[in-house]
Amino acid sequence: MSDLPKSIRITEEGPREGFQIEPGPIPTQRKLDLIDALANSGLKHIQITSFVNPKKVPGMADAEQLVTDLKPVEGVHYHGLWLNEKGLQRALASGKLHLEGKVNMYPSSTFLMKNQGCTQAQYRETAGRLIQMYKGYGMLMEKGSISSAWGCNFEGGFSPSRVVELVADLIALGNEHGVSIKTVSLADTMAWATPLGIKRTVGAVREKFPDLRLSLHLHDTRGMAIANAFAGLEMGVDLFDASVAGLGGCPFGKHKGAAGNVCTEDLVLMCNEMGIETGVDLEKLIDAAQLAEDIVGHPLPGSVMRGGSLQSLRNQLH
Amino acid sequence: MSDLPKSIRITEEGPREGFQIEPGPIPTQRKLDLIDALANSGLKHIQITSFVNPKKVPGMADAEQLVTDLKPVEGVHYHGLWLNEKGLQRALASGKLHLEGKVNMYPSSTFLMKNQGCTQAQYRETAGRLIQMYKGYGMLMEKGSISSAWGCNFEGGFSPSRVVELVADLIALGNEHGVSIKTVSLADTMAWATPLGIKRTVGAVREKFPDLRLSLHLHDTRGMAIANAFAGLEMGVDLFDASVAGLGGCPFGKHKGAAGNVCTEDLVLMCNEMGIETGVDLEKLIDAAQLAEDIVGHPLPGSVMRGGSLQSLRNQLH
Repeated sequence: MSDLPKSIRITEEGPREGFQIEPGPIPTQRKLDLIDALANSGLKHIQITSFVNPKKVPGMADAEQLVTDLKPVEGVHYHGLWLNEKGLQRALASGKLHLEGKVNMYPSSTFLMKNQGCTQAQYRETAGRLIQMYKGYGMLMEKGSISSAWGCNFEGGFSPSRVVELVADLIALGNEHGVSIKTVSLADTMAWATPLGIKRTVGAVREKFPDLRLSLHLHDTRGMAIANAFAGLEMGVDLFDASVAGLGGCPFGKHKGAAGNVCTEDLVLMCNEMGIETGVDLEKLIDAAQLAEDIVGHPLPGSVMRGGSLQSLRNQLH
Repeated sequence: MSDLPKSIRITEEGPREGFQIEPGPIPTQRKLDLIDALANSGLKHIQITSFVNPKKVPGMADAEQLVTDLKPVEGVHYHGLWLNEKGLQRALASGKLHLEGKVNMYPSSTFLMKNQGCTQAQYRETAGRLIQMYKGYGMLMEKGSISSAWGCNFEGGFSPSRVVELVADLIALGNEHGVSIKTVSLADTMAWATPLGIKRTVGAVREKFPDLRLSLHLHDTRGMAIANAFAGLEMGVDLFDASVAGLGGCPFGKHKGAAGNVCTEDLVLMCNEMGIETGVDLEKLIDAAQLAEDIVGHPLPGSVMRGGSLQSLRNQLH
């Protein structure tokens, strides 16, 4: 009937995405409480902070303090985000994080010009320098990503063949710099994907690059994230970014922008009930989602945190 | 890749489900404003009210007034709900509604005993009398439904074969009473379904009864409704109940119960973008969803009403 994977690996993005967007300030210890709750639920990859300009993103000004105070749970990989070399150096200096190099490609030349002020050719040179930089720091460098792979608000929708082209270029760029791209994240950054679009683009990329591992990063701005995740699972995708309680967007409050990633506990419930291993204790994750809502102080869009797990209902029956 | 239908038909349940659950009182004219907005968006089947005991459901006490004041849009079928013969007589007397007979089956004997105080065998007799009653009133009687087809909080999950058994019994019951059941609605009343479960159960029923038309009624209590709808589409299902703005549940407010049906405008966007006709003008439907939120006075769970359509973005690009 489909190609569902036996297990998936989730990278939790809630703490970083969520606390970045909140007006705050959120005490560092409260952030750590959530990070600990997530680690104790069984999530093995958690993005916990951004090393960005504290003047531009005040909510992330405590990045170093947060990592200093973090008491790592064994076996959990704590990730951080950076946007430039200075941020990377701060992330490296923090000492406890799992840091890997990654290069992005952008289907939209309009977006590149507006956002980064460069052409595709110029951007490609920048990306090459990034790879060299990661190599210089001795970091693992085998990941790439395609931003807005299904469409963007500057150019509209992108065809599967356009994405295949970019993935090919990403691999070529890696080869030119002596690195082998093994995993590519396809990001639905601006929520243009539908489940059928997921199947077509993932299918096209897999057909061309059968050995490449694919990851999905799915924003829920148009309510499609969980259906898109299911379509990805049906195509055998086993790496997903997700966000506890749907942190990272608050469509019910003042934030009018994009919604967060697919809700982690909703994704875990779907997988649990379809026999796909996640390694996550759903009840503990629901507790973490409720904690997230308590920390931000307003409703978050997750469903299972309100509807409850099916396993808890089954347990009550027996 | 799949069996996606060319077009689907949506039965809008928002006005009835939504206004039933709201603490109210909501003025009849406001309800009519929403119903008109829905009809003008292109929806052809709208459930507008319930003929139930006004003492038990005060929000539906204006059922007759609402139908009297309704100015029907040509080609739109306005539906009503009833729970007993008295309610049916009120619905029939109102004159403007599209009324058809329908009998339900319940996989859970525990639920039947708790909720209706009868055994399966006793319930079957009641259902037979219902069919006779609908025939007596000269109503079309060719629909059935299976409540909680994927599981219920009283007995747990139900296997596809249990549902096939009940559908067979429903058809047999019809035959015994001289009616032919042509459409069966599979209802995920208590939100136990996953997309894989949808595929298995729909697949099992279709295999056994290839000529039966299937309809899905999907509650979103665990955030699975849109993924479940996609799974249904992949199995060729072309009839869906849905609820504008996700009316019928308010997981962000005081209502702790089940969430509403799959959100109509989210379903329409998914279909539009996958090339499946709905006959609905999404922009007008988004306006209706925003009106629904304004009427109930609190956030509703729909996504597209906040994230916007992709077509409106495309239009801005050209």
